[in-house]
Amino acid sequence: MRKLEEKIPLILLVLFMAFQFVPATQKPFRDSKPCKQFMLYYHDVLFGGNDPLNATSANVTGPSGLGAFDFGKVVVFDDPMTRDQHLTSPPIARAQGMYFYNMKKVPNAWFTFSLVFNSSEHKGTLNILGADIITAKTRDLSVVGGTGDFFMTRGIVTLETEVVEGTKYFRLKMDTKLYECY
Amino acid sequence: MRKLEEKIPLILLVLFMAFQFVPATQKPFRDSKPCKQFMLYYHDVLFGGNDPLNATSANVTGPSGLGAFDFGKVVVFDDPMTRDQHLTSPPIARAQGMYFYNMKKVPNAWFTFSLVFNSSEHKGTLNILGADIITAKTRDLSVVGGTGDFFMTRGIVTLETEVVEGTKYFRLKMDTKLYECY
Amino acid sequence: MRKLEEKIPLILLVLFMAFQFVPATQKPFRDSKPCKQFMLYYHDVLFGGNDPLNATSANVTGPSGLGAFDFGKVVVFDDPMTRDQHLTSPPIARAQGMYFYNMKKVPNAWFTFSLVFNSSEHKGTLNILGADIITAKTRDLSVVGGTGDFFMTRGIVTLETEVVEGTKYFRLKMDTKLYECY
Repeated sequence: MRKLEEKIPLILLVLFMAFQFVPATQKPFRDSKPCKQFMLYYHDVLFGGNDPLNATSANVTGPSGLGAFDFGKVVVFDDPMTRDQHLTSPPIARAQGMYFYNMKKVPNAWFTFSLVFNSSEHKGTLNILGADIITAKTRDLSVVGGTGDFFMTRGIVTLETEVVEGTKYFRLKMDTKLYECY
Repeated sequence: MRKLEEKIPLILLVLFMAFQFVPATQKPFRDSKPCKQFMLYYHDVLFGGNDPLNATSANVTGPSGLGAFDFGKVVVFDDPMTRDQHLTSPPIARAQGMYFYNMKKVPNAWFTFSLVFNSSEHKGTLNILGADIITAKTRDLSVVGGTGDFFMTRGIVTLETEVVEGTKYFRLKMDTKLYECY
Repeated sequence: MRKLEEKIPLILLVLFMAFQFVPATQKPFRDSKPCKQFMLYYHDVLFGGNDPLNATSANVTGPSGLGAFDFGKVVVFDDPMTRDQHLTSPPIARAQGMYFYNMKKVPNAWFTFSLVFNSSEHKGTLNILGADIITAKTRDLSVVGGTGDFFMTRGIVTLETEVVEGTKYFRLKMDTKLYECY
């Protein structure tokens, strides 16, 4: 072994390099795996005026009259999220927010909402927004923040329409993929 | 060239340094301290039709008739944010956005808005959204972005209801904690 | 001290290690350059009741009666985004979302929307929200997330009003600057 003084320049170099290139938290890439993922089902039961017991959402504006696909109809919701496809299964979260229709020639919507978890398993919220391109088999919205167990998280939710029963009920499959976890 | 065994301690040191200094921007953790924090008070004075002078918000839709807690009532606001609890104190920011009520059996709301700062002290905006679980003593919303002095910031705001005067006025304490600062 | 050539392998190793751990996404600073930037033009043609062919947006609530600047008027839109200033140019994206007016004494608005790209060049969405301080020459909103080609991105859009034709049409210049790219 050489003497210590012989190594000093090298040790200094190592220290210099190490501090200079202080790398970040690993940022996600498009093909990377989520740090957290789960599949839930979103059930929307629209209030028709005489069914308050089961309804979980309500129109708050009429459609605007532009086009034939409810352009401008705004719906506020407090919808159950379940682990399986059954509307009557115990919800593990609520989806609270609004959507509105916004195209003239095809059905298309836009969502902004929170998933609110309040169980022994999860407490906290995920905040989500984005375009719901109904004509696409699947479409992605952004998870832009979270609180509680989901503190500061970010990611994507992928929506897929599973059932539409006229204007009374629809169900979406919602695959939540978080790429920034804490 | 020296023999390999002479180099081993140095190689180990290099490896040690490299792995030690992973994190860069300090990613926040749930128990970490915010990089910026401040407490403000949000005052909402709802327009009743004959009080335009003081009003800072207005209903834009009637309630939907679902449940007894104004489900579907949407309110647009330009509300003053003050450093103390007094409505008449000089505002240090405006909260501009909307909230709506969205539960059938209890009061509950959902907010999306900007804090707009335009003073000698701060210029810029914070963009915020999330569930306002009114029945909880405190609840967290996400700060999902910012501009100006708050460029690209993220964090949490914690809301606490302080005063509710019927449908005319309420005040929230808003504790803003930013965990990503630039 | 050993001769320089004896150190070369070690220096190379150090350099190799250092570059290997180069930070993932470079965290942006206020004066840093965007990782992606593009200029687009937003065209809003408001539905007046008898012009469904060209209209791309519609009022969904009347103004509230508070002040003289349409406080509380909510507009849902599916607006074309073009590369140049011409409304009739082929759109390279749609802006889908809503805005509402929210000040009593001056025109002021608040936006939340997605830019939806679906071309051979770009597929994906950018999700955006923030205050539209109409009286300011330019104002910044936050890009809070993205999907597809814009997976997980964040940044700023700078809006500038270019043309306002009564209540029928306005055009905004929208400079999108992304500071977190993947």
